[in-house]
Amino acid sequence: MINNNTVAAISTSVGKAALGIIRITGNNTFELVSKCIEKKEKFLKNENRKISLNTIISQKTGEMIDEVTIIKYCEPHSFTGENMVEIICHGGRTIIEKIYDELRNAGIAGADKGEFSKRAFLNGKINLMKAEAINAMIASNNEISRKIALRSYQGGCLEIIKKIQKEINNILANIESEIEFEEEDDIKEKSDDIELVSNLKNIIENEIKKRRRIKEIEKGKIIVIAGPTNAGKSTLFNKLLGYERAIIFNEPGTTRDVITEKIKINEEEITITDTAGIRKTENDIEKIGIEKSEEEIKKANLILWVTAINEKIRNEEKEVIKNIEKEKILIILNKDDLEEEKGKTKFYQDNGFQIQKVSLKKDNIEGKIIELIGNRISNKITEDEYPEIISNQRHEEIFEIIINEIENAIHEWKRKEIAAFHLHNAMNKIEEIVGKRDREDLYNTIFETFCIGK
Amino acid sequence: MINNNTVAAISTSVGKAALGIIRITGNNTFELVSKCIEKKEKFLKNENRKISLNTIISQKTGEMIDEVTIIKYCEPHSFTGENMVEIICHGGRTIIEKIYDELRNAGIAGADKGEFSKRAFLNGKINLMKAEAINAMIASNNEISRKIALRSYQGGCLEIIKKIQKEINNILANIESEIEFEEEDDIKEKSDDIELVSNLKNIIENEIKKRRRIKEIEKGKIIVIAGPTNAGKSTLFNKLLGYERAIIFNEPGTTRDVITEKIKINEEEITITDTAGIRKTENDIEKIGIEKSEEEIKKANLILWVTAINEKIRNEEKEVIKNIEKEKILIILNKDDLEEEKGKTKFYQDNGFQIQKVSLKKDNIEGKIIELIGNRISNKITEDEYPEIISNQRHEEIFEIIINEIENAIHEWKRKEIAAFHLHNAMNKIEEIVGKRDREDLYNTIFETFCIGK
Repeated sequence: MINNNTVAAISTSVGKAALGIIRITGNNTFELVSKCIEKKEKFLKNENRKISLNTIISQKTGEMIDEVTIIKYCEPHSFTGENMVEIICHGGRTIIEKIYDELRNAGIAGADKGEFSKRAFLNGKINLMKAEAINAMIASNNEISRKIALRSYQGGCLEIIKKIQKEINNILANIESEIEFEEEDDIKEKSDDIELVSNLKNIIENEIKKRRRIKEIEKGKIIVIAGPTNAGKSTLFNKLLGYERAIIFNEPGTTRDVITEKIKINEEEITITDTAGIRKTENDIEKIGIEKSEEEIKKANLILWVTAINEKIRNEEKEVIKNIEKEKILIILNKDDLEEEKGKTKFYQDNGFQIQKVSLKKDNIEGKIIELIGNRISNKITEDEYPEIISNQRHEEIFEIIINEIENAIHEWKRKEIAAFHLHNAMNKIEEIVGKRDREDLYNTIFETFCIGK
Repeated sequence: MINNNTVAAISTSVGKAALGIIRITGNNTFELVSKCIEKKEKFLKNENRKISLNTIISQKTGEMIDEVTIIKYCEPHSFTGENMVEIICHGGRTIIEKIYDELRNAGIAGADKGEFSKRAFLNGKINLMKAEAINAMIASNNEISRKIALRSYQGGCLEIIKKIQKEINNILANIESEIEFEEEDDIKEKSDDIELVSNLKNIIENEIKKRRRIKEIEKGKIIVIAGPTNAGKSTLFNKLLGYERAIIFNEPGTTRDVITEKIKINEEEITITDTAGIRKTENDIEKIGIEKSEEEIKKANLILWVTAINEKIRNEEKEVIKNIEKEKILIILNKDDLEEEKGKTKFYQDNGFQIQKVSLKKDNIEGKIIELIGNRISNKITEDEYPEIISNQRHEEIFEIIINEIENAIHEWKRKEIAAFHLHNAMNKIEEIVGKRDREDLYNTIFETFCIGK
C-alpha cells in the first residue's frame, strides 16, 4: 500500500532534545498526513504557510502520540515544489520514531538520502549547484568550508562558470567560422584565440590548486597523542576532552585500543586520538596496538608527543621521533614537578623541537596546550585564497577533465576540427556541473551523498 | 548589553542533519531577532503564526549566514506566553552555532535548561505536571515510559490527585468540626473517616510500588557480555552492534577497557557492554580490567556469558558463574563449528542454564541472539500496572512524605488537633506537585533537570 510518490524523513538529528522536525513531500501529502492527526478538518482547511497546533494520533488505537505544530506548504510554494508538510514535534527519539512509524503506516514511504533536494531540483526549484551547496553547508565543520559553500549557494560560482561557458562559446564560434572559410586567404587566423584558451587553462588550473588546499582543510585536522608508555598520554587526552574515558593506571601499556573523539578549537572541529604507548614488546597484542599507533601518527596533522621528564630517553623513542617531520610535533615534557631531569629537555632542544614542560597532575594546563595546538594547526588562509568556482569533489573531477580537453585543443590548435571537438567536449562537461534535468542516472549518484531529510 | 529578559536556545539535537531549530522568547524577541535578519520590515510586519522565508545575516559584515524559515508567535499565543520566534535553519553544527552566536551578539541571552517550560509555567500557560510530563516524554527511551509521561501530559494524573485533595479536605473538615464541638456529646466520632484515610494510604502505597517497578524500566536495561578470555566476546559485541569496534585478536586478554554502546531491541533502548575476559592473572592492569568486568556483571539485567565449547571449563569460570543468579544468564557456547566438546554443554545443562550454541564466525546468528535477548529482558508489564499518579522521581519523593504524614495522622487519630496538623502537611505537599507559582526556589531546581530549549 506504500505510495512511492509521497515520502517522509526525520530531518533533525535524533537525540534527547526539545524539538524535532519530520518532513513530508509529495502530491498526496495532505491526505496521508491527515490520517495521523486528530483535527483533520482544521488541518486540511488551513492555509498555505500558516502553522497550526494539532495532535498526532495512533491510527490503530486513536491514542495521542504527541502534540505538534504543523506547517502546510501548498505546491508550488514549497522547497520541493510539491505539497509539503513540516511537523515540529517534541524531540525525544522515542516520540520522533513513533510519529515517523505512524506516517509510514498511513502509506507514506521513507525518503531516500537527498530526496527532498532532488525533487526540488527536478521540479525546477533549485539548480544542481545550489542543491550541492546546501549539502556542503550542512556538512561544513569549519568556517572556511561554510563560507565556500555559502558562496556557491548564493550563486557566485555559477556566475563565473557562465562567463567561462560564454568565452569558450565565442572561441568556438571563431574556430568554426575559420573552418568554414579556411580556403579563403583573406580570413587570417585569430592568434589571440589561443591566448584566450591558454588563459582559461591557467585560471582553471589555479582554481584546482586552490580547491586542493581547501580539501585538506575540509578533511578536518587530526591530532594524535603519542609517546612512550606511562608518560601521561591518556591523562592529557582526558584533560583535553574534559572528562575521564580510558583506564589510567601507573603501569606501562594500559591503552591498547586507539580511542578517538572530536573537540573544537578556533571554530574548527578536530579529531583527537589517544594511542597505545610506544615501547619494545614481545607481546603480539601490544604489537598490534603499537603498529596502530604508528599508523595514526602517519595520518596526523599534529602529534602531541607526551614523554616523562624523569626518565632517560630510550632508543625506541628516538627511532619513532626521527621518522616524523619536526613541524608536525609538539613535545609535551610531562612530570615537570618531579624535577628529575634526565637529559630529555636537552635532547629535544638540541634537535630543534618545540617543547612545552607541564605537570599534567597540576590543574589548568589544558588551556595552554589548546592555545599551542591552535597556533600550530589553525588554517592560515585568507578569503582570496578560497576557490571561486570549484566547491566540491564532483566539480573538481569535472574540471580536471575540462583541463584535459582544453590541453588537447591547444595541442591540436592547427587542426581546427579537432580543437573544436575538444572544446565542445569541455562545454558538455561544464553543463554537467550546472545540471541539466535529463540525466537521472547522474543525479541519483549525486543526491545519494546527501543526508536524509534534505 | 545582554538583556536577560529575552533568551535563545538551540532546541534540536546538534549533528549533521537537514534542519535545526533555534527558539527565542521574551518581550524584546521581535526587535532583537530583527537585528540579525535581512528583510526586517517583512519580518516585523508578518502576522502571528505565519511563517516566512528570510536570511540570517552577520551584523558586523552584512554577509549572509543562512536562508531560514521564521515563525512568529505573538504573546500570549505562544508556548511561553511571551513573544516568541522559531528559526528553522539548515541543520549543520557550524551553521546553527553561527546563527546562535549572532543572536547572542544582538543582545539575546542564552536560555537556561528548561527555561521555556519555566516561563510557560510562570506565565500560567501550563501547570507544573504538564511541564514535567513534556520533559519525561522527551527523555523516554521506551514505550512504557512514553505512555506514562503521555498520561501525565494529558492530565490523567492531575485528575486523580485532585480527587485525593478533595477527599483529604473533606476529612479535614470533619475533623475540624469535631474539634470545635468536642465538648458536645451529641457529635459522635465519624469512624468511617479513619477508614477513608487508611484507604488513601493504601492507594498511595500501591502507587509507589508501581512507580518503583517502572523506575527499574526507565533506567534502561543493561546487557553485559562476559566470559573467559578469548571466547569471542568482542566478536559478539561487534556483531550485535553491526560494526567493528575493539581490536579482535586470537590471544587471551585483548579487551582491557569496558566498552559500552546502545542498541534498540523491541522499541527499547538497551545499553550493551563488552568486558575484559575473566581469568587468573598476576598482572595489575588486567586485574583492574577483570574487577571492572565483575562490577559490570553486578549492574547487568542480562549477562551473555560467552564461552568456547572447545575448552574445558576452568575453576575461575565456575567461580564467577556461581555468584550470578541463573535467570540473569544466557550461555553462549561459541565455536560450535569446532565440535570439540569438552564437557561444557553438560555442565551448563546439568546446572539448569539456558544455552545457545553458536559459531560466531558463521553469519546471521545476531538475529537469533537478539530474539533470545528480547525474550529474556522485554518489559512484561500491562497498562493497568502503570502508576496512575506518580510519574517521576520528584512526585515519588513527595508522596513518600505524604504517606508519612498520613501514617502520623492515623497514629494520632484520637488527638484530633495533631491528626489535622499532619493532614494539613500532606495537603501542602500535594500542592507542591501541581505547582503554585510563588515558590521560585523550588521551581528553579525542577527546571534545571530539563533539557536546553525546552
